Amino acid sequence: MNDRPPMKRVAFVGAGPGAADLITMRGLRYLQTADCILHDALVSADLLALLPAAAEIIEVGKRCGKPSAVQSTINTQLVTAARRHARVVRLKGGDPMIFGRTAEEMAALDAAAIDFEIVPGITAALAAAASLRKSLTLRGVARSVALITPAVGVDENPHDVTTTSIGADTLAVYMGLNQARIWAARLLQTGWSDETPVIVCESISTAHESFDSLSLAGLAGLPEAACRREGPTLILIGRAL
Amino acid sequence: MNDRPPMKRVAFVGAGPGAADLITMRGLRYLQTADCILHDALVSADLLALLPAAAEIIEVGKRCGKPSAVQSTINTQLVTAARRHARVVRLKGGDPMIFGRTAEEMAALDAAAIDFEIVPGITAALAAAASLRKSLTLRGVARSVALITPAVGVDENPHDVTTTSIGADTLAVYMGLNQARIWAARLLQTGWSDETPVIVCESISTAHESFDSLSLAGLAGLPEAACRREGPTLILIGRAL
Repeated sequence: MNDRPPMKRVAFVGAGPGAADLITMRGLRYLQTADCILHDALVSADLLALLPAAAEIIEVGKRCGKPSAVQSTINTQLVTAARRHARVVRLKGGDPMIFGRTAEEMAALDAAAIDFEIVPGITAALAAAASLRKSLTLRGVARSVALITPAVGVDENPHDVTTTSIGADTLAVYMGLNQARIWAARLLQTGWSDETPVIVCESISTAHESFDSLSLAGLAGLPEAACRREGPTLILIGRAL
Repeated sequence: MNDRPPMKRVAFVGAGPGAADLITMRGLRYLQTADCILHDALVSADLLALLPAAAEIIEVGKRCGKPSAVQSTINTQLVTAARRHARVVRLKGGDPMIFGRTAEEMAALDAAAIDFEIVPGITAALAAAASLRKSLTLRGVARSVALITPAVGVDENPHDVTTTSIGADTLAVYMGLNQARIWAARLLQTGWSDETPVIVCESISTAHESFDSLSLAGLAGLPEAACRREGPTLILIGRAL
């Protein structure tokens, strides 16, 4: 592509859930005209195949269990890239503003006086609803959707996922499968019905997409082996399903 | 465009928040190869300008106050179009699965044995966060985002928005400005701080985009005249802002 749309020095671009054609038009144009692209492991191979050959590509994937240390490294890599290149894309799985730790990277750019913009992406909950052909809201049944995570950083107090979950009609739980038995049991204790429909979604929108339907009681009783998956997962919960 | 990507007879396509280039690649390809497009008033003029000249374009906008009657008309229009055309796109503002009443249209297609698929779109909350450059989640501050609406249909009991809102860290309130004084006062009664940041977002991602920052107490005391806006609005609430 020869036209280079106006862009701030850095653009955080939401890659969407996995399928390459679920990125936005703006996101794709920025990607294809970037001089440098920093991406993490959540971005799919299909999308990476669309990156321009001339661009510098930097993978900044995190290792599980050492998020804080690696986040500061990513911040440094991003600032360094922005000083060396005119058009830098920071490509993130899903949407940058939902569980993407973009706030920390934006703060690093602010501190270095580097301008940036954000291009939103399709977050997993919406992509899962689309694949399943199930609306997350439903007249008379579900008027609210909560996007939540039980995952905590090493320097944080555990936060009780049920505090949020008591009120919402539909829950979309990100990064929650590992601890699902614990928080699902708490949901049951706080009054959610045993029979509440649950769908465990894996590798949404990709060729490896899979969905397992069960009940909330079933989730609370899931064997540990069933909580380990290859692809990224999302858990949808609620009567609207 | 000459290539016609495989598509079910009907595709519900999320138009995104307003800017034409915030539709997904897949959504745009479906639009540009459709024989017939049904859209509502929330879809922006910029996006409508990209529709193929050869397609039949049907506007199915609703009038405020008579949602139920008009929804059944839309269902009928959609089924009729799907019987007459091979590739029908039902274009909806934002994402089809969030407050889009898509469930009712899917049921109508199911009843008529017409196959369909869903292409997700950028919902207003994510687009607003991107424009504002503010993450909706923040380590140590906000681990949950609730997408909610206080709007009810004529045949529904009013639902107390605070039931949902007690637990979530960040709220994105759709179609809520008209009644904002009422539900904001209820939030304050249930323990939300007077000083909680609030951003009233209008015409997100378009040339007419605007943001008003205030506090939750300020929202509860907003003059009635300030609650009437030209463009679609979204209200973001929470400490992460």
